[in-house]
Amino acid sequence: MAIARNQWYVAAYSEEVGEGLLARTICGEPLVMYRTGAGEAVALADRCVHRRFPLSRSNRDGDRIVCGYHGFTYAPDGACVAVPGQTRIPRTARVPAYQVVEQDSLVWVWIGDGTGDAAAIPRAPWLTSPDYVTVRGMEPLAARYELLVDNLLDLSHETYLHAGYIGTPEVAQTPITTEVDDEAGIVYVSRRMKDVECPPFYATSTGIEGRIDRWQDIEYHPPCFYLLHSRIAPTGVEPGPDGDDPRAFHVEVGYAIVPETDTTTHDFWWVARDFALDDADVSRFLHDSNRTVVLQDVEALDVLEKVIAAEPAGYQELSINIDTGGLAARRVLQRLTGAR
Amino acid sequence: MAIARNQWYVAAYSEEVGEGLLARTICGEPLVMYRTGAGEAVALADRCVHRRFPLSRSNRDGDRIVCGYHGFTYAPDGACVAVPGQTRIPRTARVPAYQVVEQDSLVWVWIGDGTGDAAAIPRAPWLTSPDYVTVRGMEPLAARYELLVDNLLDLSHETYLHAGYIGTPEVAQTPITTEVDDEAGIVYVSRRMKDVECPPFYATSTGIEGRIDRWQDIEYHPPCFYLLHSRIAPTGVEPGPDGDDPRAFHVEVGYAIVPETDTTTHDFWWVARDFALDDADVSRFLHDSNRTVVLQDVEALDVLEKVIAAEPAGYQELSINIDTGGLAARRVLQRLTGAR
Amino acid sequence: MAIARNQWYVAAYSEEVGEGLLARTICGEPLVMYRTGAGEAVALADRCVHRRFPLSRSNRDGDRIVCGYHGFTYAPDGACVAVPGQTRIPRTARVPAYQVVEQDSLVWVWIGDGTGDAAAIPRAPWLTSPDYVTVRGMEPLAARYELLVDNLLDLSHETYLHAGYIGTPEVAQTPITTEVDDEAGIVYVSRRMKDVECPPFYATSTGIEGRIDRWQDIEYHPPCFYLLHSRIAPTGVEPGPDGDDPRAFHVEVGYAIVPETDTTTHDFWWVARDFALDDADVSRFLHDSNRTVVLQDVEALDVLEKVIAAEPAGYQELSINIDTGGLAARRVLQRLTGAR
Repeated sequence: MAIARNQWYVAAYSEEVGEGLLARTICGEPLVMYRTGAGEAVALADRCVHRRFPLSRSNRDGDRIVCGYHGFTYAPDGACVAVPGQTRIPRTARVPAYQVVEQDSLVWVWIGDGTGDAAAIPRAPWLTSPDYVTVRGMEPLAARYELLVDNLLDLSHETYLHAGYIGTPEVAQTPITTEVDDEAGIVYVSRRMKDVECPPFYATSTGIEGRIDRWQDIEYHPPCFYLLHSRIAPTGVEPGPDGDDPRAFHVEVGYAIVPETDTTTHDFWWVARDFALDDADVSRFLHDSNRTVVLQDVEALDVLEKVIAAEPAGYQELSINIDTGGLAARRVLQRLTGAR
Repeated sequence: MAIARNQWYVAAYSEEVGEGLLARTICGEPLVMYRTGAGEAVALADRCVHRRFPLSRSNRDGDRIVCGYHGFTYAPDGACVAVPGQTRIPRTARVPAYQVVEQDSLVWVWIGDGTGDAAAIPRAPWLTSPDYVTVRGMEPLAARYELLVDNLLDLSHETYLHAGYIGTPEVAQTPITTEVDDEAGIVYVSRRMKDVECPPFYATSTGIEGRIDRWQDIEYHPPCFYLLHSRIAPTGVEPGPDGDDPRAFHVEVGYAIVPETDTTTHDFWWVARDFALDDADVSRFLHDSNRTVVLQDVEALDVLEKVIAAEPAGYQELSINIDTGGLAARRVLQRLTGAR
Repeated sequence: MAIARNQWYVAAYSEEVGEGLLARTICGEPLVMYRTGAGEAVALADRCVHRRFPLSRSNRDGDRIVCGYHGFTYAPDGACVAVPGQTRIPRTARVPAYQVVEQDSLVWVWIGDGTGDAAAIPRAPWLTSPDYVTVRGMEPLAARYELLVDNLLDLSHETYLHAGYIGTPEVAQTPITTEVDDEAGIVYVSRRMKDVECPPFYATSTGIEGRIDRWQDIEYHPPCFYLLHSRIAPTGVEPGPDGDDPRAFHVEVGYAIVPETDTTTHDFWWVARDFALDDADVSRFLHDSNRTVVLQDVEALDVLEKVIAAEPAGYQELSINIDTGGLAARRVLQRLTGAR
């Protein structure tokens, strides 16, 4: 499957974009990112028009980038404003500037033609809400992004790949419901577990000692944005009629599944919680545990990418009920990429 | 040249197949191998039907394998017997099971279609005979298997590549006789050396101090099975009229030359002897010496594979008399693969 | 662009060719080089006619090479003079011998058909002149040779890539003059800087403390030979009317830009000076400084090669006045390779 263009992609966390020149390839396009003195995030094509030198290996002069090879100088809008040995600047001397939207502490770029609709970018208000505390990171994945989409849309794998962290037998045993909002292009997958074992990830962070009700409500906004609304509560605790739910613990897990190239992916992940807000130990525990879980996925998916590279063309997978979410996601992605 | 299919290949030594899940690729096909509680060796395709996860990275549940990604569970015959989240198992949920024959402490698998004839598998009775003691190993070769066939069918290279171990000037100087049994598809190459220097490999292991008669009788069963019947005796010692030969030393060297991929090979090797049966020093010496010799070949053939990768298409070799065995082997292999 | 054939290329420094067997690939052709007992440099194809084994991994027997695999033996003219197991030597048993010319302490080989005209090889008399002292080296470049030609024909990059060594702002600011001798196929690029800052490379080596006049006179003999006649003098010092110039410092920088493969290059470099001839500290300083500068180029060009490998086909560069030398060099190279 091709990578969808004319889409918004998460290119960085806000805190990654600052004084330095950050190199990051998104959908095969090399970008250089930085923040102007006025605080605006900038994303330019990372290739000097002259002799292709990466601007990310160059130097800033205020808000400008001076190419480290021959000194071609670029403004934040991509326009070349100085060249060596002459005062005339060629009319076509300009690097593409990418449309950038920074919200919810994420830096989004529009990959494709024309202008993206900023209002269409999905939100993650927990990341900046005072009612939540977030830990997060990003891991490089030597596998195509579709494998991570598959992985995250089918959480039954938690039982096998993440036992001892977030997996318990009940995850794989409990059926899911899948819904697709075709108009909005969103895939919803829900799994509601009643009176089940509490895995260490939640037991340690919430302090719950007995059995729990555990909800996994996935919301996937193709191509790159994945939210897992996770609710954990002592068995029998229910939300109030008006939706308030003070005795439950809410964990907003999220991923940005961002293609770097056809076969490599940026695996952005975060865990936001509405409890133990001031507890640094809980933050450290959730960060380290979730990173371990992500790296278990990375190891497995890197293997799958090698399996795909070595297998005969036309190999067919077999899908079952647990895959309805992943298959729905593929259909939406195929529509976005124009593939059959 | 393609790799011959519809053939028996050595996939492992018996002692390699046990409790664990052994991953091994044979002729480009990834296998997982293990031994059932009843002691039977099993070889399955190493790819879960669901999402391709290698079964070799999974776990055993008795004689079954439980996929480490989503828990698809397979019986030793390849049938899927459990899937997560539902009780109905899809009719087509099955991984290919390979026909396995274990004999002479070798685990053979049939690569190809239909059923292989177990009686056609060549024998190596020395490997399990009480009259012989064997040392053995396996080295990975980053070169196509044809290069190892070439190497082993023309032992004149011992003089140059293995001087100080098994090579002496007389090996390269002594002419060979070559015979091909076209019906059985076996290539025989013989070199009979009279009154020659005894190389360290045999001097140290047998204790012979003077000059020797040295016979090299090669028997190559394409595609993968190679036997070198080596007889060393003090010069002038001859076998009796009934074939008994108690004053000579017999070393049964063998190789299984097994394609892993088009350009990599499993180089199984063994050295069985009918003398010094209880002498651990001789065992250690022969093991280490032969492994060194094998690694000298590996280093040379890995270089040749790189030469081939870099050379212009259509490069032609030049062959001489010493190559009659290797050329005969190529002809048989070409017939097996259907190549011209 | 293809690599030009039917051309002379520098294959080694004289001191590299001696008793040992030197492997070096030039224009995709693997060579083995050595020096005969009579002192003559020899370059043969580095591939035994029999089974392709590299002769460079073999052994010398006097002026002959004995293949390390099966003992095929070659004379310095490439003729095979012995094979194992038989006395008859096949008529076609011969490896190509390359025409070699050794002059100015450089070993040139003719890559192509027919016989090269030795008189057409450009000279570098400084390398062996008693009036000069030379330091030199060779660095491997994981980039196509055209990128190094580009780099060296446009020295405005010194200001940005080599600041603190040989770059000052005036290099990029000073316009160049470019001339092409179409008949001889030589590109000349000159930059004359008056009353400019003296960079550390020249300040430390010459001892000049004030401002300088600095001349950069490039002479590029495609495909591989590059000379930079560098003149440094205290500002206002001029050569005499007869060309004598005793108060100036002359540094003859040179490069041999030799394709190893389509995307890798041998970057031979030297710095010859006509001052401080007996000063080992100056030699060490110039060696280390120039090697640092070369490695700065290597790092940058290795990056550019990766950029090219990842970019869409048909990407267009933008050129300005500083590129007239590089563009002229490309035109000559295109003529040599028969490319459009």
